[in-house]
Amino acid sequence: VSLEQVTLEPTRLGATAREALTEILGEQGISEDHLTRVAHAAGRSYPDLLGLRAGLVGGAPDVVLFPATEDQVTAVLSACSRHRVAVVPFGGGTSVVGGVEPHRGEFDAVVALDLRRLDALVSVDDRSLTAVVQGGMRVPALERALEPLGLTLGHFPQSYEYVSVGGCVATRSAGQASTGYGRIDELVLGLRCVTPSGEIVLPARPASAAGPDLRELIVGSEGVLGVITEVSLRAHRRPATRRYEGLFFRTFGEGAEALRHAVQEDLAPDIGRLSDETETRLTLALAGREGLKARLGDSYIAARGYRGGCLAIVGWEGTAAEVDRRSAAGLALLVRHGGLRLGPSPGRAWAAGRFAGPYLRDHLLDRGAMADTLETATQWSGIEACHQAVREAIGQALGARGTPPLVMCHISHLYESGASLYFTILARQEPGAELEQWRAAKTAASEVIVQRGATITHHHAIGRDHQPWLEAETGSLGLEALRAAKRALDPAGIMNPGKLLGDG
Amino acid sequence: VSLEQVTLEPTRLGATAREALTEILGEQGISEDHLTRVAHAAGRSYPDLLGLRAGLVGGAPDVVLFPATEDQVTAVLSACSRHRVAVVPFGGGTSVVGGVEPHRGEFDAVVALDLRRLDALVSVDDRSLTAVVQGGMRVPALERALEPLGLTLGHFPQSYEYVSVGGCVATRSAGQASTGYGRIDELVLGLRCVTPSGEIVLPARPASAAGPDLRELIVGSEGVLGVITEVSLRAHRRPATRRYEGLFFRTFGEGAEALRHAVQEDLAPDIGRLSDETETRLTLALAGREGLKARLGDSYIAARGYRGGCLAIVGWEGTAAEVDRRSAAGLALLVRHGGLRLGPSPGRAWAAGRFAGPYLRDHLLDRGAMADTLETATQWSGIEACHQAVREAIGQALGARGTPPLVMCHISHLYESGASLYFTILARQEPGAELEQWRAAKTAASEVIVQRGATITHHHAIGRDHQPWLEAETGSLGLEALRAAKRALDPAGIMNPGKLLGDG
Repeated sequence: VSLEQVTLEPTRLGATAREALTEILGEQGISEDHLTRVAHAAGRSYPDLLGLRAGLVGGAPDVVLFPATEDQVTAVLSACSRHRVAVVPFGGGTSVVGGVEPHRGEFDAVVALDLRRLDALVSVDDRSLTAVVQGGMRVPALERALEPLGLTLGHFPQSYEYVSVGGCVATRSAGQASTGYGRIDELVLGLRCVTPSGEIVLPARPASAAGPDLRELIVGSEGVLGVITEVSLRAHRRPATRRYEGLFFRTFGEGAEALRHAVQEDLAPDIGRLSDETETRLTLALAGREGLKARLGDSYIAARGYRGGCLAIVGWEGTAAEVDRRSAAGLALLVRHGGLRLGPSPGRAWAAGRFAGPYLRDHLLDRGAMADTLETATQWSGIEACHQAVREAIGQALGARGTPPLVMCHISHLYESGASLYFTILARQEPGAELEQWRAAKTAASEVIVQRGATITHHHAIGRDHQPWLEAETGSLGLEALRAAKRALDPAGIMNPGKLLGDG
Repeated sequence: VSLEQVTLEPTRLGATAREALTEILGEQGISEDHLTRVAHAAGRSYPDLLGLRAGLVGGAPDVVLFPATEDQVTAVLSACSRHRVAVVPFGGGTSVVGGVEPHRGEFDAVVALDLRRLDALVSVDDRSLTAVVQGGMRVPALERALEPLGLTLGHFPQSYEYVSVGGCVATRSAGQASTGYGRIDELVLGLRCVTPSGEIVLPARPASAAGPDLRELIVGSEGVLGVITEVSLRAHRRPATRRYEGLFFRTFGEGAEALRHAVQEDLAPDIGRLSDETETRLTLALAGREGLKARLGDSYIAARGYRGGCLAIVGWEGTAAEVDRRSAAGLALLVRHGGLRLGPSPGRAWAAGRFAGPYLRDHLLDRGAMADTLETATQWSGIEACHQAVREAIGQALGARGTPPLVMCHISHLYESGASLYFTILARQEPGAELEQWRAAKTAASEVIVQRGATITHHHAIGRDHQPWLEAETGSLGLEALRAAKRALDPAGIMNPGKLLGDG
């Protein structure tokens, strides 16, 4: 259905609260326009998309707020605490785990706090390679601002086109080049976070031994502690050269071992991906038109004994000399560990389509398919067993419902001690039971993931969808420590109720 | 005075509490022996050393406990909560910030909880390059256990000979090779921490987006939240080759810029140190006997225009091929930025004396000198100004007391965004006012450090001595969030009272 046709309940925000918020933000800073409310009613999870397509959203924010200054954010949180209004911080709105669902919790009303007007690049320190950025700045806008200075953040999640800096920090996102440039949590050197109890201000410092790291309490806090209004980030010199190449491995295990050796021997590519057999087959089939298959089709690969194998995409970025030096050593190592070099065309094809996944999902949903992704990370010693176990669990769960899935996977980020696994699930939709079908697959995969001691999420965050498994990761006492910190920073409990820490 | 002559108050531990603790630990697990108490009465701060030399320690633990299992630690914390006994976790006892002072706080008695019997290497995962280690294991013992497996932790603080793994983690220590191997906080992948409210268990995971990072709450917690009984650490392949070299720069600023370029261009040495002019002069004078000066004396250096300059020590470790490749590129860069290569002898001299600093301090104290060190870290853009300001502040504070100091400094750890500064202060002792003299210097330096937004401590931790400046680093609300977490984990407040978070 079109967005105009989505049904919304009338706004429940009381007149006194509305008046207080209007006084802080002015009329232009507060909106209860139908389309604006719908646009802030959901993120981009599979349940979100099902709801939006049916014209039934689980609820919308009563109003949407657009603060233009940090002082306005402070005043808004104070007013909302006073008037018992729940606040959902809103960046790019691309959460795939229900992180921006407008839950009222125990409150009468809920507002979305859209940070888009806090979008300034505050300062750049060229000698220290750091940039201070407001939380609402979009990552592509930051890249455009850094480009003339010869700098880049180097953070490219699949949702790159929409995401905000604050949203990335609040959800611990990882970009496609994070093996080289670092996850967002490795790029955050300092931040400002407005909470209902006041502000936490942590200037950029290269390292410190002054007690527990408070940055790491705010990073990943998903809006439940406060609003990240400013971030000090590490920037990098803009690469003059990018070299992406494809390699083929005989098996997923062989490819994983090769990537493990690369990262442990300090020769990791900046981008390192390895598709399993299923994903490789689909990639090669889809790539036919791009000319990839023409060169790398069955005959070429089979002739070298790699039929049914696994495609890896590796990339290096930097100065020409640096890319030459690092890619030569890295590719030699990968070949030594079984890789067959395919040249630059698979890399180019991947780079051209790197942000296309979400659009593809929309097309699949249009055609009656269930399409979702999930991800984890675990130690190298458990990576193949985890890959196998998650595939089987999803296969069994959906097979039992008569909708046997295609489960594909790739390694997407490399660490010295392990790697991430990114799964894509495709199946025929179960008409009338779409949500139950999705939940069955999600639950089966999540149970297996936590049983193996792997993380419930490598870069999608917790939101609502991963909540049942957070305690398996932190333990009940760990969760209690986080809730104690929340009570100190948000005594009224207005910040993003029901997300991350649940309703406790 | 000898340790036997140190005066102690009689133990104040009540009979019921003593009985409960003896039941948990057995007679061999609890000691009120005079020498044992004295050995746990102080760390290695300048005030500690003054006290020990005078035979007056500020207090000693009433008894010293030696648990042998994690269950015993759990039972001890429970008994101490019940009987209102303060607990000071004790690793290597090398704190230079008062971190192991036996403060009773509001409690009747205080015990030192010495972890030395929890000293097992639990497991090694060779594929994931990780090791699980009990908190009381000494770092040299860990190195000895890893050596036959071809592995190393690579963590070498100046106190290396004594420190425990848990102590390093609790204080966020950095080793001399941490530019290459990573600070201890970068090596911790998981941990077990026993608190009075129960246990926090975080298995090793390469990365996660599951909310705030609880590891980073426990790392650096200095015993105020609980006892770190086990740590999952990243290990590294043991280097086959080590290459240490010396370089000379014309000025501290020139050398700092060269090291900045190295780390920002991904060519940082694993060990990177740069002494300022004063420290260089003293190093060269002291090195006379080692033959260093013979080769690098005034005439050699002056002939090349580097008189009065600054000595850098750089080191690379790894496979022979890797060391060749990285050191060639790194040294070329440093020379391009003004460095004069001095060959391996300064590196050898530094490596031979790398753990000697504390012994030297003892000799100086024997001769009526005040000798202390302090450290910070800040952005590259502020590094020279911070160096200058701290030197001046200490000079003025001690000059005003009639004991003008020699203040030396070196850059000891390199980061993309900044570096650490490590200061050594030497002055004539002020007889009868030794503590006041020390406090004047410490206060002057600390005030300047926090005013500049630099960290109050890069790797010495907070303990007691840095407490007045912690709030400048975290803000009052940040401190409140940490105290809230403490209340959840240690409701009775028995864990290391008065340290880190103060008495609040």
